[in-house]
Amino acid sequence: MTTTPLLDRVHTPHDMKSLDRSQLKELAADVRKETISVVSKTGGHLGASLGVVELTVALHHVFDTPNDKVIWDVGHQAYPHKILTGRRQDMPLLRQKGGPSGFTKRSESDYDPFGAAHAGTSISAALGFAVARDLNLDNHNVIAVIGDGSMSSGMAYEALNNAGAMKSRLIVILNDNDMSIAPPVGAMSNYFSRLISSRPYQSFRSIAKEAASYLPKPLETAARRVEEYARGMVAGGTWFEEMGFFYVGPLDGHNLDQLIPVLENIRDRTENGPVLIHIVTQKGHGYAPAEASADKYHGVVQFDVDTGKQHKTTASAPSYTKVFADALIDTARRDDKVVAVTAAMPSGTGLDLFAHEFPDRCFDVGIAEQHAVTFAAGLACDGLKPFAAIYSTFLQRGYDQVVHDVMLQKLPVRFAMDRAGFVGADGATHAGCYDLAFLGCLPHLVIMAPSDELELKHAVATSHAIDDAPSAFRYPRGNGLGLDLSQPAQVLKLGVGRVIREGSKVAILSLGCRLEESLKAADQLAEFGITATVADARFAKPVDEDLVCQLAKNHEVLLTIEAGSIGGFAAQVTDILARNWLFDTGLKFRPMYMPDRLLDHDNPTSQYKDAGLSSDAIISTVLMALGREKLMLAS
Amino acid sequence: MTTTPLLDRVHTPHDMKSLDRSQLKELAADVRKETISVVSKTGGHLGASLGVVELTVALHHVFDTPNDKVIWDVGHQAYPHKILTGRRQDMPLLRQKGGPSGFTKRSESDYDPFGAAHAGTSISAALGFAVARDLNLDNHNVIAVIGDGSMSSGMAYEALNNAGAMKSRLIVILNDNDMSIAPPVGAMSNYFSRLISSRPYQSFRSIAKEAASYLPKPLETAARRVEEYARGMVAGGTWFEEMGFFYVGPLDGHNLDQLIPVLENIRDRTENGPVLIHIVTQKGHGYAPAEASADKYHGVVQFDVDTGKQHKTTASAPSYTKVFADALIDTARRDDKVVAVTAAMPSGTGLDLFAHEFPDRCFDVGIAEQHAVTFAAGLACDGLKPFAAIYSTFLQRGYDQVVHDVMLQKLPVRFAMDRAGFVGADGATHAGCYDLAFLGCLPHLVIMAPSDELELKHAVATSHAIDDAPSAFRYPRGNGLGLDLSQPAQVLKLGVGRVIREGSKVAILSLGCRLEESLKAADQLAEFGITATVADARFAKPVDEDLVCQLAKNHEVLLTIEAGSIGGFAAQVTDILARNWLFDTGLKFRPMYMPDRLLDHDNPTSQYKDAGLSSDAIISTVLMALGREKLMLAS
Repeated sequence: MTTTPLLDRVHTPHDMKSLDRSQLKELAADVRKETISVVSKTGGHLGASLGVVELTVALHHVFDTPNDKVIWDVGHQAYPHKILTGRRQDMPLLRQKGGPSGFTKRSESDYDPFGAAHAGTSISAALGFAVARDLNLDNHNVIAVIGDGSMSSGMAYEALNNAGAMKSRLIVILNDNDMSIAPPVGAMSNYFSRLISSRPYQSFRSIAKEAASYLPKPLETAARRVEEYARGMVAGGTWFEEMGFFYVGPLDGHNLDQLIPVLENIRDRTENGPVLIHIVTQKGHGYAPAEASADKYHGVVQFDVDTGKQHKTTASAPSYTKVFADALIDTARRDDKVVAVTAAMPSGTGLDLFAHEFPDRCFDVGIAEQHAVTFAAGLACDGLKPFAAIYSTFLQRGYDQVVHDVMLQKLPVRFAMDRAGFVGADGATHAGCYDLAFLGCLPHLVIMAPSDELELKHAVATSHAIDDAPSAFRYPRGNGLGLDLSQPAQVLKLGVGRVIREGSKVAILSLGCRLEESLKAADQLAEFGITATVADARFAKPVDEDLVCQLAKNHEVLLTIEAGSIGGFAAQVTDILARNWLFDTGLKFRPMYMPDRLLDHDNPTSQYKDAGLSSDAIISTVLMALGREKLMLAS
Repeated sequence: MTTTPLLDRVHTPHDMKSLDRSQLKELAADVRKETISVVSKTGGHLGASLGVVELTVALHHVFDTPNDKVIWDVGHQAYPHKILTGRRQDMPLLRQKGGPSGFTKRSESDYDPFGAAHAGTSISAALGFAVARDLNLDNHNVIAVIGDGSMSSGMAYEALNNAGAMKSRLIVILNDNDMSIAPPVGAMSNYFSRLISSRPYQSFRSIAKEAASYLPKPLETAARRVEEYARGMVAGGTWFEEMGFFYVGPLDGHNLDQLIPVLENIRDRTENGPVLIHIVTQKGHGYAPAEASADKYHGVVQFDVDTGKQHKTTASAPSYTKVFADALIDTARRDDKVVAVTAAMPSGTGLDLFAHEFPDRCFDVGIAEQHAVTFAAGLACDGLKPFAAIYSTFLQRGYDQVVHDVMLQKLPVRFAMDRAGFVGADGATHAGCYDLAFLGCLPHLVIMAPSDELELKHAVATSHAIDDAPSAFRYPRGNGLGLDLSQPAQVLKLGVGRVIREGSKVAILSLGCRLEESLKAADQLAEFGITATVADARFAKPVDEDLVCQLAKNHEVLLTIEAGSIGGFAAQVTDILARNWLFDTGLKFRPMYMPDRLLDHDNPTSQYKDAGLSSDAIISTVLMALGREKLMLAS
C-alpha cells in the first residue's frame, strides 16, 4: 500500500492541472513525505526543500512549466521540484555518480531552465529570459524564486536595480525564511522583519480577495523582533516599490489558499513591469526534527525518519575546517589583532568556533564576497590582521577585490580557502579548481597549499606572520590524515619546499593534497626498480626555485602534480625551468593537473581518479616517460 | 601676479583650519582654477573633479585629515584633493611616468588611506577602517565619498547592508550628480531623483539650523523628472533609512554654507551608527565648457582654457573600440538575434554606436558586471546571441558569473574584452593583465586575441559563429595599424593559427598585439643571420596543437609572447609541448609574458618595453638562447 497515493499519479506538472485545492494539499503532503524519505537515504539539503513544498506545488499548478520558466536561486531547495518534474525515480541516486545533481541543472531537465548552486543569480538570469522573450515576441512567464539570504548578495541587488527600471514582465518570489545556511545578517534582513510585522496581508488582501483567517506562525516570531527597531515602521512605499517593483505580500508560503490565488492573479495581470511576491516560509517545515533543529537540517547525512537522528559516522581524524579553526583560534589568543571575516558561512568555514570565543573579532558580512574582501582590506590598513575565510569556489565572487583592493595595495589580508580541489557530492559548481590559476598570476601574493592537517596548522602560522603582503592557503574538503597535532605550529620559510623522500630517476613535485598519492606512486615505482624523489612544494607561489632546479638537474623526469587546473602551480614551475634554461637539456617535464573538462558529482576519490590525478596516473605517466609502458601491462 | 593667492598659502589641510567661510569660498575658486589649469595641460578626468571642489574644501576644513580618513570612491575625482594635500607641485606630471596617479593611491600620500580606480569599493573599505578603529579604541572619523553611479554596483549595496546593521560610526557621502561616465541607469537612479524632488532640505533644516535661501539648480532639473513616476512620492523612511543609516539631505554640494555646518554637526554627533549625507552636485561645475558638454568633460585630452576646445589629434587609424563596434553593428544587421550588454560603459566599449542603431537590442545594466554576465547568460538560454562588452580589468568583477553561469552551462555568451594588456595613463588598476590566466583555466571557453584590427573583425565574426559554447576575444586600448578594413569578415577556423613568415632556427609564436614586435625582432635577427619563423596563434584557447608541434620540431628555440600574465597562453603551449613529449629532446622553450610585478602609469610603449615584451627583449632572449649574446653587444 503506497503512502503517497496522489503523488504516484503525478508524473509531470501536466498531471497537476486538474487537481482541486484539497487534492493539491494532499499532493503537497505526499511530496513532503517523499522528500523526507529520499533524503533520509541519500543525505542532502533537506531544510530548504521542505520550506518550499507548497510553493513548488503552487507554481507547477498555476504556471505552464516548462514553457513558463521557473528559476530557483541556489537550486538546493529544488528536490520537491525534481520529484514533480519527472525525476522522482532517479532521486535514490541524488548527488551520487550518475544520479540527479543536488542543484538545478539545465542538462538534467527541461524544467530546469537555468542551473544554479552559487547564490543570488536567479534574478539576473530571469531578467535575461524575460528580455529574450520580449525580443522573440513570446509571452510566457518568467519566475525567479530567491531566498532572503541570497538577497544580501550584490548581484541580486544589481539585477533588481536593472529590472526595476525596465518594463519587462518578470515575477520575483522572495522566499523569506529568515535563514539561509546560518541566520542571515545585515540591514535588509532586519528590514524584511519590519516589513512582515508592519504590513500583514495588506497587499495580499487587495489582490487576492480571499481573507486569511489567521496569522501564520513565522509572522508571530517576526512580530516580536520589531520592538528592536526604534526607527519605526515602514510606511508608504516599500523598499521594493522604490526599486521599481510592484510589491505583493507578505503571504504565508505554506498556505495554498493564499499562494494559489495570488499566483493566479499575478499570472493573469495585464500590466507590464516586474512584480515581487514576498512569502514567508519556515525552513524544515512539516518535519518536526528539522523544525526543532538549530540549522533546520540545512545539509544532512542519512537519518532515521521517525526520530530524525542522523547517522553521523565518527571520523578518524578532524576535518581540515576544524583544524583551520583551531589553529586560528590559537593564533588569535596570542595576538589580539587577529580578526576573521566570513561571507555567510560561519559553520562551513569553522568560524562559528572562532566567533564563539571572539564575538567582537569575527564578522559575518552576508552572502557578499565582494564586500568581504574589501572590508578585510580596510581592516588590514589600520593594523589588524584579517583572515578572510572563503571557499575557493566562492572567492571567484571577490576576484576583482582580491586584485584591485588587496593585491594592488599589497595589503596583508589572509585568504583561507577551504574546499580547494574536488568536493564530491556538490559537483562542478562547488569544486575549487581555479584558485591556483586566478591567484597565481597576481604579483605580491603568497600562496600555500598544505599537504596535510599539520601543514595546514603551519600555513595558518605562516600566513599570520606575513604582514607585508597578501597571502592565501588552500585546503581540501574532508578530513585530515590523522596526524598528531599536538606539536606547535611553525612559521614556514617563505617559498621553501621540502623533500620527503630521495630517489634518482624521477622527481615528483607535489603541491597540496596530492602528496599522499605521490608517495604511494613512489612506493609502487620502487617495485619496478625506479626510485623517485618526492617533494612537497608547500608554496604555489613563490615556488622553491632551488628545489625545482635541483630536481630538474638530478632527474630524468620531473613530474608536478596539483589539485587544480592548468595555469596554476605547473605554470610557476615552468617559469623557473625556462628562466634557468632547464628545458634545454631534454628534461622530461610532465605537469599533471585537472583535465580541461568538468567533473560531475561523485566521491572525491573517484573524481581524482577520473581526473588522472591518482597514484595510478602518476605511475603510468612516469613509465611512459621512461619508455617502460610494458611494465604497466605486466603488473 | 598669482591668480590663486589663497591656494598659494595652503600647502596642507592644516593651513585651512583657520580660514573663515568667505576665505574658504575663495579657496574653492582657486582650487577650481588650478584644477582646470592643470588638466588643460595634462588631460585627465576633469568633470568629476570640478564637481567636488567645494566638498573637498569642506572635508579638509571640517575634518582632521589625514587622521580622519577620507576615502574617495573610484578616486578619479581626487585632483582637488591632491592639490590641497601637498601634491600641487607634482600635478604637471599627472598620469605621466613618475607623476601622480590619476586615482587615489596609498603609496602616494598619507591623505589617501585607500586607493581606488574601480567603482563601488569605498564603503566596504571605510567600514573596515571604522571597525578597526573601534577595535583599536581610536576615535577618528571615517568618511566614504561615493557617486550615484557607483551606488549601482553590487558591492556598494553589500557594504551598505553590512554597515547598516552595525553600530560602527561611519559617514557615507552620496555624491549625486546623476552622471557617472554615462547617465546612470537603473531603478536606484530614478529613486534618487524622486528623493531629491520630494524632500528638499527637510532633513538638512532639522540638523543644520541654517536655512538656505534658494533651490540649487540641479534640484530644479531633477524636479521636472518627478512627474514620470506615477507611483508617487517617497514618504516616511528613505531607502537608506531602511538600510539602517541615519539619512541627511539632500544638500547643495556646491554651497559651503550648507556643507560645512552639516559636516560639523555630523562630526560632532555623539550617537553611534552609520550616517548617509546625500549631496547634489553638478559634474563639470564652474567651468562653462564642461557644464555645456554632454559628457561634462569626464575624460579630456589637453585643451584651451578660454574656449574649452580640446586638442584632439587625428588618429591615422580607427581605434580597436570603433572597429569592434562597427563589426558588431554589421553582424547585427544580418542577424537580429545579436544583442549587446554593457556595464555602464556605452562609449568606452563603442556600444553607444550599437545602441544608436539598435536601441532595443542594447542593454546598459549599470556598474554591475556580475549581473551583466548572468543577464547575458539568461539571454543566451533563449536563443539570443549576446555580446557582453566588458573591459578585461572589469571582467574580474564578473568572474564567478563567467565560471558558474556561463562556462558551467556552456552558454554561448560572447565576451568582448577591450583594454587588454597595458593601458597607459590609467596605470595598474586598469591594466588588462590577467584575463588569459583567469579565463584560460576554464573548460569550454574559446579565447581569441586578434593581432590587428582586421583580425578583430574576424574575431567578432568567429565569436558570432560559435553558438554552442562561450567565447571571448581581447584587444588592446588604442588605435589599429591602419589596415584596409573593406574586406569582409571571416569566420576563423577554431583553434588554428597562421604562419606569417618562415625561418629555420627560431620560432616566435605570438598571441595578440605582440605580433608587430615579433616581426620587427625577426627582421633584426635576420641581420645577424638568424632566420625566424613568426606565427600568430590567433587563439589562446584552444591553441593550435599542430602548429605548436611543427614549430617545436623544426626549430631550436621556441619563444612565445603575449600581452598578459603568467598562466595564460604560455601555459596552454606548455601543455601541448608536455603532452607531445616535445620537451624531451631539448627544445629551448622561452615563454615571454608580463613580469611578476606591477607597472605604474606610463605610455603603453614604455610599459611593454619595461615589461620585457618589446622587440629588443625578444632579440636578446633569442640570442641568449643560442649562446650568441656577443652579437647584442656588437650591434
